[in-house]
Amino acid sequence: MSAYQYQIKNFPLDNDALLLQETLFHNANGYIGVRGNLEEGYPEGYRSIRGQYINGFYNNVDMPQAEKLYGLIEEKQTMVNVADTQSVRVYANGQEISMLDSRAGERARILDMESGVTERSFLYNDSDQKLRISITRMTSMEILPLFLIRYEVASENCSASLRFESLAKGDVMNFFDPSDPRVAGEACRHIVVKSAEHRDGITFITSETTKSGLQVTTAVKNVLSGESFRETIPEETQVTEKITADLAPGETVTFYKYAVFCDSRRYENTLESAEKIMKEVCALSPEVLYEQQKRYMKNFWESCAVDVQGDEDLNAALHYNLYQLIQSAGKDPRSNIAAKGLSGEGYEGHYFWDTEMYMQPFFTLTSREVAGNLIRYRYTILDQAKENARLLGHKKGAAYPWRTIMGKECSGFFPAGSAQYHISGDIAYSVAAYYLATKDLAMLEECGEEILIETARLWMDIGNYYEGKFRINTVTGPDEYTCLVNNNYYTNSVAKYNLYWAEKAYRLLENAGLQQRVIEKTGVTEEELQEFARASADMYLPYDEKLGINPQDDSFLQKAVWDISTITEEEKPILLHYHPMYIYRYQICKQADTVLAYFVLEDYQDEETMRRSFEYYEKVTTHDSSLSSCIFSIMASRLGFEDKALAYFGESAKMDLFNTHKNTKDGIHTANMGGTYMAVVYGFGGLRIKESGLSLAPHLPKTWEGYRFRILYEDSRMEIQVDRKQCRVKLMEGTEKKIRIYGEEYVLKDILTVEFENREIPA
Amino acid sequence: MSAYQYQIKNFPLDNDALLLQETLFHNANGYIGVRGNLEEGYPEGYRSIRGQYINGFYNNVDMPQAEKLYGLIEEKQTMVNVADTQSVRVYANGQEISMLDSRAGERARILDMESGVTERSFLYNDSDQKLRISITRMTSMEILPLFLIRYEVASENCSASLRFESLAKGDVMNFFDPSDPRVAGEACRHIVVKSAEHRDGITFITSETTKSGLQVTTAVKNVLSGESFRETIPEETQVTEKITADLAPGETVTFYKYAVFCDSRRYENTLESAEKIMKEVCALSPEVLYEQQKRYMKNFWESCAVDVQGDEDLNAALHYNLYQLIQSAGKDPRSNIAAKGLSGEGYEGHYFWDTEMYMQPFFTLTSREVAGNLIRYRYTILDQAKENARLLGHKKGAAYPWRTIMGKECSGFFPAGSAQYHISGDIAYSVAAYYLATKDLAMLEECGEEILIETARLWMDIGNYYEGKFRINTVTGPDEYTCLVNNNYYTNSVAKYNLYWAEKAYRLLENAGLQQRVIEKTGVTEEELQEFARASADMYLPYDEKLGINPQDDSFLQKAVWDISTITEEEKPILLHYHPMYIYRYQICKQADTVLAYFVLEDYQDEETMRRSFEYYEKVTTHDSSLSSCIFSIMASRLGFEDKALAYFGESAKMDLFNTHKNTKDGIHTANMGGTYMAVVYGFGGLRIKESGLSLAPHLPKTWEGYRFRILYEDSRMEIQVDRKQCRVKLMEGTEKKIRIYGEEYVLKDILTVEFENREIPA
Repeated sequence: MSAYQYQIKNFPLDNDALLLQETLFHNANGYIGVRGNLEEGYPEGYRSIRGQYINGFYNNVDMPQAEKLYGLIEEKQTMVNVADTQSVRVYANGQEISMLDSRAGERARILDMESGVTERSFLYNDSDQKLRISITRMTSMEILPLFLIRYEVASENCSASLRFESLAKGDVMNFFDPSDPRVAGEACRHIVVKSAEHRDGITFITSETTKSGLQVTTAVKNVLSGESFRETIPEETQVTEKITADLAPGETVTFYKYAVFCDSRRYENTLESAEKIMKEVCALSPEVLYEQQKRYMKNFWESCAVDVQGDEDLNAALHYNLYQLIQSAGKDPRSNIAAKGLSGEGYEGHYFWDTEMYMQPFFTLTSREVAGNLIRYRYTILDQAKENARLLGHKKGAAYPWRTIMGKECSGFFPAGSAQYHISGDIAYSVAAYYLATKDLAMLEECGEEILIETARLWMDIGNYYEGKFRINTVTGPDEYTCLVNNNYYTNSVAKYNLYWAEKAYRLLENAGLQQRVIEKTGVTEEELQEFARASADMYLPYDEKLGINPQDDSFLQKAVWDISTITEEEKPILLHYHPMYIYRYQICKQADTVLAYFVLEDYQDEETMRRSFEYYEKVTTHDSSLSSCIFSIMASRLGFEDKALAYFGESAKMDLFNTHKNTKDGIHTANMGGTYMAVVYGFGGLRIKESGLSLAPHLPKTWEGYRFRILYEDSRMEIQVDRKQCRVKLMEGTEKKIRIYGEEYVLKDILTVEFENREIPA
Repeated sequence: MSAYQYQIKNFPLDNDALLLQETLFHNANGYIGVRGNLEEGYPEGYRSIRGQYINGFYNNVDMPQAEKLYGLIEEKQTMVNVADTQSVRVYANGQEISMLDSRAGERARILDMESGVTERSFLYNDSDQKLRISITRMTSMEILPLFLIRYEVASENCSASLRFESLAKGDVMNFFDPSDPRVAGEACRHIVVKSAEHRDGITFITSETTKSGLQVTTAVKNVLSGESFRETIPEETQVTEKITADLAPGETVTFYKYAVFCDSRRYENTLESAEKIMKEVCALSPEVLYEQQKRYMKNFWESCAVDVQGDEDLNAALHYNLYQLIQSAGKDPRSNIAAKGLSGEGYEGHYFWDTEMYMQPFFTLTSREVAGNLIRYRYTILDQAKENARLLGHKKGAAYPWRTIMGKECSGFFPAGSAQYHISGDIAYSVAAYYLATKDLAMLEECGEEILIETARLWMDIGNYYEGKFRINTVTGPDEYTCLVNNNYYTNSVAKYNLYWAEKAYRLLENAGLQQRVIEKTGVTEEELQEFARASADMYLPYDEKLGINPQDDSFLQKAVWDISTITEEEKPILLHYHPMYIYRYQICKQADTVLAYFVLEDYQDEETMRRSFEYYEKVTTHDSSLSSCIFSIMASRLGFEDKALAYFGESAKMDLFNTHKNTKDGIHTANMGGTYMAVVYGFGGLRIKESGLSLAPHLPKTWEGYRFRILYEDSRMEIQVDRKQCRVKLMEGTEKKIRIYGEEYVLKDILTVEFENREIPA
């Protein structure tokens, strides 16, 4: 595998393999996402999750509760499958061409991460008449509404009469399984076509969501080199174009299908905008579009420059994951990063804490614009978070929804949903993290401090003092195998940090004379700020004297241990085979919880406590959540368990490519992808950015030759290269910086080299 | 109010008043229940919950969960409204007669608890032509399928041409509110008519449930004195009969409408059975039927003979409650006692722990046949309780469903449903209680010990040892304002008792050589029995040293106290105004929980602990549950808080008659009715039946002159009469018995009198 290519050849054609490919080879740019479905469709009996999505474009769906209780959520938002512009059927001399046909061979699929395109090719061999098919797909990073298919038919040895049938189809539904009687197809019909028209050679399909009142226009234009005949067939909800051309021996016919998506959340007049953009796009040659994309990707790779030297497979997997992050991240404050990006319908396009704790760090360190928008997105939904807090009974503060698209809580099961109050602390944490990396006071003034104050207020209303300590009862931590507990170590830790920063950030603004806006918006008082600081200082963090570890919550250690080694393969993951309440009754963790707290807030405990806890929790963690391995890798690095760090990193890096969670068909695991990045930079690199400044403590797995990464810190960009001999930090732009490496302070002016010998942390 | 009559006169005719009356004046006999709807119907715009129900006759209903998780219940059973036989429209000289008409006056409704009938009467005055209308309704206690209406029209001063239009209507639905868009009427259509026919003067309507495959035939016969003309109008789903007669001045015309219900759970051929029973009934004169009913009621009142002397209102309310208990209790092992009896659709006709902990004691002490059937019912669903345990993850044991009709769990919200494991301990408790009162080893052999063993096995699988104590995590106690907690004091107490009795009862059977059946059915081993006993002995019962009380659960006391005095009227009950999770986070109780444990298992704590706890929990209990006041009354009696005992008793006794929970329209609160009884017998009377025998510790509220009750104990029936001077116990039948009164042992041979002076417990 080349470091910037993911390719598969002569792969199996069974349905599971194709479903997985639909995810792995999807195209997205943070605004639109297109699953890697086959242009020619599938034979009878094949299941395909055929979808094109727009980030943040949603419908409202009834979600009745089995038993009505006050405050339980009964409507959710769901990401909508929009008009299908993928379909292109091609006929050579009247015979339909399909990759799934027995006449097709030499099949290959490639994700070219330097060009930012996917390619699919095969040789079509009908009675020794050979046609080479190449299909290139791109969602443009520069022109976000654009999805472009290039369909090439090259003759190797024959002439052929070609017919392209290109369909723009408005009558689409979200995925449902026709064999599953529990889900009616009608329930998955989220948009209806308002108009389908064809003029000036462009098809326009305008659709409206059934309940959320959103609109999207899809424009499609078909261009064929050597076109000899064209027929346009407009129907009520779709338009088909049939175009013919003749192919001479040794020559190539190229078909382009341009699709432009404009939705009413971003464009005032979706139809006019789609038309305008389509015309602008078509005025450019396709080569310009591909060139733009290449340039964008070049910048992207140069901005992060993450490489592992000595393990090319791992390196390629790492690049794959970073590529998916930039494909998934919303590029405006109206959207965020869904748990599955724009690659599938799993988790319904919802945004979770995954963004702040797993993905935002990547963007904070490499792309401030994206990172800033992620925070601004949370600010746009702050009012809804306040409403959500009221629904949950709180007289003050903001409770961010556990899962949402546009700000309303969409969780149907509150014990593993709204009860995860930590998400508000996570968002606060990310505001502080962004500030620490950027020192961007303007962002704090514009929205960050308001978020910090409203979330701090939430903790004040949730928690209560008992025996001199501030405690937080009846919440669920990150580990969903233990719900509705008291004093979850992770939750209390992020709450402590949240309360601290609400006060701290205010002082920073105050010192700069920038506090006025915050006072006006929040009405925060000096007394309240002091209460925040006091509660933070008094926060109860559970500690077990006997074991010398932090219990995950007050009662975790008194429960029976579920011996993980007794879980059979058929019982995995246990959440699909055991009643939640049964699971709650055991010491068994779905994912890093206390261990995650150690990573993000390492100064709250001494190293020995963290080491004992790590070893304790490792024994009871199933990693059934995709958010777990990466964190265990980071903490294994931190605590000197080098082999474990590498093993967990491998699990994290290859999760989707090897489909280890067996559900990648429903979409990629974006949080884990961000976690893979963190495992390199925070884990192996030992990077930390705190109030005390930036520090590094790199170590190098035995099987690697080296690794490097580039980061933004304050006004500077720097590259860190670690190899067997040394850790070299190079200032690429910006001013000099103090850096602590292995605990010693240096000043980075140009290039800084620290000998690596004997620095390896013992395994 | 007479002691055995509940009557209201010239009551308001607003919709709320009528809805309440529908419940308060319903007729039931444990098999069928008929709400007190008006025969003549209601004017446009009136809401009426028009219903006739059969105990244990149910349909299956989809109950999709908002979020799918393993093991969550997605189908429930619901009590079905069956064919409507209440409708009788009467016309005098062409004018329709209605109680709601402005021409009606002198309105009265009476529940005659000695005759076992309800009566409704009014004077119909049209242009000074006066007709007296009297309608008497009865569900026969002797012929359970029979519901009989007698409609009398008496002329005071005129002649009239009368027409009776009697409808038997098969096309009925369960109640839904047409103004509530969330509930579609079709969702409430649980039965469809298979046939409606009329032959030999009888209408037969046979209906089938839509999903549960049950069938019911309703036979109706109309009889009118002085009949002059009859027209029968059969339609597809109903039959109307129009019958005319002439009324002379000063005379009375009487119309009888017989309705017989036979369902397929009790009758193999419902049509044949209904026909046979109808013919048998009609062969008797109505007077015979009324006489049977009177005799039954006379026996009933004599068997319990509960009276309060000196507070007639309270006495009548008490009788009302006892009457509802005998109306509600299933008279066969196929049914039980629904939370609302057969009086309405609240809680969907489901059976809860209410039966064992609140109602069964009444029957155990007064009607062994009913009590025995209640236990047998639980035995009939033991296999389903085992399946439910598997669904909940347990490898062994039986977990009784929190709410059910035919044995399957019907709770849609497990934190306040399936998590209430205590129901299995409650059922075990009731088996032991039945044995202690009856010494009926045959019942233990037949089913009791099997229930005890399977429920004990459940506790062994739920609980775990920690620090030498047996603990039970992640359950919900009776108090639904605190869910999914560890070591709920009540739950652990009943589990301790359950485990103890599983072993104890086995020894009793073993000593009598009756253990073989149990061994064969359960495979119980000596080792297992010893494990039960050990876990019981080692059961952890939480105790707080500082406060000297039993915490409701491990973490109850560390939560913030919700000052009940701050709750506004609009916020009551808080469950309708606060998110459950918010409520869980506070020290606030919906109902007696630890206090209930003290009543049922008083020997687990010393009196001072119970007193301190009582005072503690009283401050944080809202009594939002109807199951609370009665228990607080009993424990107030036990602990010497006489004024409180009386005040709580009043709340309990008058709950439905005064509609204090504002939802009696949906049905009576049967558990509370049983609780009222217990408050007299266990509370004021201080009755206890333990392994050590029967004991009494009566005290007398200052405002009462005295009270009495009769109970069955082993092979004896006795009457306890308490007055200002003495407590007199009279052996009415059976052999002599040892009795402990105020801690001193006596032998009851004939009459036993203990001076009452100075026995009053200080307030």
